[in-house]
Amino acid sequence: MLNFESDYLEGAHEKILRRLIETNMEKLPGYCTDKYCESAKVKIRELCRCPEADIYFLAGGTQTNRTVIDASLRPYEGVIAAPTGHISTHEAGAIEDTGHKVLEIESNDGKIEAVSLIKYLKDFHDDVNHEHMVYPGMVYISHPTEYGTLYSKDELRRLSSVCAEYSIPLYLDGARLGYGLMSEGTDVALPDIAEYCDVFYIGGTKVGALCGEAVVFTKENTPRHFYTIIKQNGALMAKGRLVGIQFDALFSDGLYFAISRNAIEMANILKNILREKGFRFYNDSPTNQIFIVLENEKMKRLQADIGFSFWEKAGEDHTVVRLATSWATSIDDIRALADLLR
Amino acid sequence: MLNFESDYLEGAHEKILRRLIETNMEKLPGYCTDKYCESAKVKIRELCRCPEADIYFLAGGTQTNRTVIDASLRPYEGVIAAPTGHISTHEAGAIEDTGHKVLEIESNDGKIEAVSLIKYLKDFHDDVNHEHMVYPGMVYISHPTEYGTLYSKDELRRLSSVCAEYSIPLYLDGARLGYGLMSEGTDVALPDIAEYCDVFYIGGTKVGALCGEAVVFTKENTPRHFYTIIKQNGALMAKGRLVGIQFDALFSDGLYFAISRNAIEMANILKNILREKGFRFYNDSPTNQIFIVLENEKMKRLQADIGFSFWEKAGEDHTVVRLATSWATSIDDIRALADLLR
Amino acid sequence: MLNFESDYLEGAHEKILRRLIETNMEKLPGYCTDKYCESAKVKIRELCRCPEADIYFLAGGTQTNRTVIDASLRPYEGVIAAPTGHISTHEAGAIEDTGHKVLEIESNDGKIEAVSLIKYLKDFHDDVNHEHMVYPGMVYISHPTEYGTLYSKDELRRLSSVCAEYSIPLYLDGARLGYGLMSEGTDVALPDIAEYCDVFYIGGTKVGALCGEAVVFTKENTPRHFYTIIKQNGALMAKGRLVGIQFDALFSDGLYFAISRNAIEMANILKNILREKGFRFYNDSPTNQIFIVLENEKMKRLQADIGFSFWEKAGEDHTVVRLATSWATSIDDIRALADLLR
Amino acid sequence: MLNFESDYLEGAHEKILRRLIETNMEKLPGYCTDKYCESAKVKIRELCRCPEADIYFLAGGTQTNRTVIDASLRPYEGVIAAPTGHISTHEAGAIEDTGHKVLEIESNDGKIEAVSLIKYLKDFHDDVNHEHMVYPGMVYISHPTEYGTLYSKDELRRLSSVCAEYSIPLYLDGARLGYGLMSEGTDVALPDIAEYCDVFYIGGTKVGALCGEAVVFTKENTPRHFYTIIKQNGALMAKGRLVGIQFDALFSDGLYFAISRNAIEMANILKNILREKGFRFYNDSPTNQIFIVLENEKMKRLQADIGFSFWEKAGEDHTVVRLATSWATSIDDIRALADLLR
Repeated sequence: MLNFESDYLEGAHEKILRRLIETNMEKLPGYCTDKYCESAKVKIRELCRCPEADIYFLAGGTQTNRTVIDASLRPYEGVIAAPTGHISTHEAGAIEDTGHKVLEIESNDGKIEAVSLIKYLKDFHDDVNHEHMVYPGMVYISHPTEYGTLYSKDELRRLSSVCAEYSIPLYLDGARLGYGLMSEGTDVALPDIAEYCDVFYIGGTKVGALCGEAVVFTKENTPRHFYTIIKQNGALMAKGRLVGIQFDALFSDGLYFAISRNAIEMANILKNILREKGFRFYNDSPTNQIFIVLENEKMKRLQADIGFSFWEKAGEDHTVVRLATSWATSIDDIRALADLLR
Repeated sequence: MLNFESDYLEGAHEKILRRLIETNMEKLPGYCTDKYCESAKVKIRELCRCPEADIYFLAGGTQTNRTVIDASLRPYEGVIAAPTGHISTHEAGAIEDTGHKVLEIESNDGKIEAVSLIKYLKDFHDDVNHEHMVYPGMVYISHPTEYGTLYSKDELRRLSSVCAEYSIPLYLDGARLGYGLMSEGTDVALPDIAEYCDVFYIGGTKVGALCGEAVVFTKENTPRHFYTIIKQNGALMAKGRLVGIQFDALFSDGLYFAISRNAIEMANILKNILREKGFRFYNDSPTNQIFIVLENEKMKRLQADIGFSFWEKAGEDHTVVRLATSWATSIDDIRALADLLR
Repeated sequence: MLNFESDYLEGAHEKILRRLIETNMEKLPGYCTDKYCESAKVKIRELCRCPEADIYFLAGGTQTNRTVIDASLRPYEGVIAAPTGHISTHEAGAIEDTGHKVLEIESNDGKIEAVSLIKYLKDFHDDVNHEHMVYPGMVYISHPTEYGTLYSKDELRRLSSVCAEYSIPLYLDGARLGYGLMSEGTDVALPDIAEYCDVFYIGGTKVGALCGEAVVFTKENTPRHFYTIIKQNGALMAKGRLVGIQFDALFSDGLYFAISRNAIEMANILKNILREKGFRFYNDSPTNQIFIVLENEKMKRLQADIGFSFWEKAGEDHTVVRLATSWATSIDDIRALADLLR
Repeated sequence: MLNFESDYLEGAHEKILRRLIETNMEKLPGYCTDKYCESAKVKIRELCRCPEADIYFLAGGTQTNRTVIDASLRPYEGVIAAPTGHISTHEAGAIEDTGHKVLEIESNDGKIEAVSLIKYLKDFHDDVNHEHMVYPGMVYISHPTEYGTLYSKDELRRLSSVCAEYSIPLYLDGARLGYGLMSEGTDVALPDIAEYCDVFYIGGTKVGALCGEAVVFTKENTPRHFYTIIKQNGALMAKGRLVGIQFDALFSDGLYFAISRNAIEMANILKNILREKGFRFYNDSPTNQIFIVLENEKMKRLQADIGFSFWEKAGEDHTVVRLATSWATSIDDIRALADLLR
């Protein structure tokens, strides 16, 4: 059996494990106040070229989204997102559980366009009944999106400018940020994200860590007592070192970028193989998630040997499935997969 | 100025006021435990032909929706509704404030079809990731809808049967129920609603009362301690008599039906006038809300003399507006309006 | 049977009813935007000597408390209250339902003292673990309290000054404010309340109205989009006129004060009678609520003829009960009661 | 500097780390569906002698408490706890954030007695106003408590029996359960806890793991779709292996019990030293947390060399501090501490 279901199939990159072992018996204070959390923050600030960045470490994506969004919104506000956004569909209603509506707007291949955003915001404020409606209070995007796609620098700049015009923060879910930054065609680097977003998170869980996401507030805009809000959401780790040490390792010697690049390289090779073998792509994803459309019979046959993720139905006879590479995928894995893909 | 903005422009029907005056100095227990609440419940049970109906009185529509829906759902559940449903758009996120997602499904002219509902529910349970998603736990419909349209008995029966198949309750928002029941073409009577819905409410505020909605649980299915949940939602009136007496009056001698019929008769005359004068209807509403499409210049001209509600844009140059008749609309009002409609 | 259970046994004062009748057929806009709401606001601002007061009308006490408190607090904050405070005990957890903790502090006869408040706040901020605790974000007091007692001007001033020092608003629940203002010994008038409190409400339901409470923000401190938050809490009345007209009547020609004074006068006569007859007072309440301690056997005997409220047990053999007078209590009621009290 | 602040100063026990390394490159499914989670569940069921136990793994204590409690309560219910309970004070209002009140009852040294519980429950149901109050829907205890104390088997049995009588579940927070089970005087073993509690959790974070708590439902009473509720609370780990492998290691070859015993042995030696040196104990804690009362001047002197936790003020001149041993404390640590304690 070959496993390409996701980018979180293995444990952690060995350099991360090594650091956990080396530091294991050091006595450190809890709740993310240890020196490794501090060191990781310094490195992230530098890589973002954002000396004023305020950084927090949480354990997972859904808890990060609910904590950041709940802390940022006032009771009468909701968060704008694509209908395919992770918070819209696959977080079991975590945002609504905090009392806020997810305001879905038109999207394309996982992405929101500035022009749709302007229309939504303008229509809202023009509506004579808007005081009886949920105020848009934040914009949520993911990069890469749930469909593996990426924003260009120009697209981010435009979204950012619309948000600024309406005084609502732009929040970027970077669960797979590394894979986005290392994608071949992208012109978006970490400092761009820090520049255009008001808050974002750098995903660890899906990029080589055992767990952990780093939330970055970039505009001296951290919600008051955000630390206590993290605690209230059950997202403050007693052994904060677990995330601090991992992020410190990920951002030492370019590890985060190197292992992300591996996933992209493997994905690119795999895409070529799929193309040559005549597989039909669902979309043009430039990152480590590859979506292909399989005839259902063929899907069943392949399932016997290959692990992939069911994504969505494509009519009665076809299904969209996802193959994901990761920091841990080797060229041998790809070759073995190639042999099975027929 | 002629006012046709809504069906809640006046106070209460005079028979209601009279009963409030007659009973004013009686000393009655609070919190809806008085004899008028009891008497109103008896009458409603009889009219619903549902002797086991369990009935509660609240003050307004949004508080009724949030209280009923929150009480009925478990934390992992959301409520299915049309995107145009009142809870989806015009209740300021009251449902999400209780922690639950509104799950929007395809609708037409304000109505949900059984076939769309089946598809949604089947797709949900077929989705391999559905444990990471919000479970559909209730279906919300309004009757009349926000677009004045009505379900037929057959449509209600089919929705009810889908809900039963998936063991989720069907909830009907009857803010304007009287106008629906008295509509000319309808084959839906109160006992049908009690039969097909697990819970519904009979609107008072928009049908001649100063305030008040009567929630009816029809299947011995009242959520445990619903009374306390009403209190927690701030919806339990200290002077419950205010709603009890009003509903007792509304359901004495057919008052509720008679005054609803007046609104329908006036609306029908008005529709004929509008048709004769060549106005363009937005849809075919059989109830007291009439939606017409006006060229923007004309709309501005008419606004000088006529009060109506802005509903939505219809392209750049046109607007959908609503004219509503009510229990209080007289034939003179309609004639005066006819003179101004040119 | 003589009823002294509460101050909300009857409907409304006849002058209020009369105004409802007189204005009944006027066509007015909904949602508290009508001219009677405006007129009532003007009168309240004047009586408070607070021209900048921002005023909202809601239907009942619990919904007012939950809406004001939820709108005022940030997610990491709770509200300080006496353990006997209405929000602490008798609102079915409405405050917690909005996500906020009620932080109980020491109290005496329903009242919080400035010295206890200082201690609580100082201890909180001194606690090295306070970032893991709920931040005090508001102080809730009731006036009269749930035990009928009153703050003096000096006590209010001191509470206000502590709140100002810690930058947290002081909120006064005035469900029975009229009875407090008209109490014989008080030195607290409406302008004092407006001066010392950041927000308070003037109760209508228990002082002669059918329903309605007037929330007053006194320091240009209304939470942003409070109107939408009212809607979200299900507390925005479609027929806002119902509360607007009632408050306009209550604050015309001193009606609110006159009818409150009646309750106080009747209570004072009743207290003298009770004293003469040797009843034991639970406390020294200067307002319309009278608390007496009855031996259980005697309580049962009296219950046959007199309606009163059970308050709390006082050991195994005694019970504290409450007798309440109101705007509607007549001297004949008191005399009839006196005959039965033996 | 010697560190005795807490029992979570180091990383993980080396056997846990070793298993993480050995399994690191295995490709495992996510979200706690891997074989190590399964294996750990089998072991826990056996040790609890509870074959029907339903087990879930979460990352930390506060998220476990909020998720279990929210899933177990209906909207009108709150959870009974000691005022010193972790959920009452040091979880930043996480329970209230889920909409439920923490109902504090009398406690002693961190413990609730059955007699207080009966009184509370009886008084609640006897109160004629209880429909306006928060229903007690669960009892929360911690074992060891926040003051290091333990329930006896008999005490647990009595609490359990009161809970059964009132049909409310008994929930035990076992953040430090190992230390309780290995305490010298205790007669409570894991199967007793499984027998007397409806749900409890076995703490990993404070007993040798990097993170992780194992929730055990013992009576075929798991709330419906609890898995989805975990996800909604942001507490479902994508790499569930991280907790599964750790618990599998903790419950292999008695590791959990062995390392807990070490903490107890070290604590006992330390207590003897403290006693000999004349330190004043705040209470008689039989577990790994030792509470002593220090004169403030002395506290400041000791702080220069020894890390301990500030617990609470004891009057103006004294402070209660906590020293904690753990799975990682060595006899050398204790000796070094003894030298500094003078």
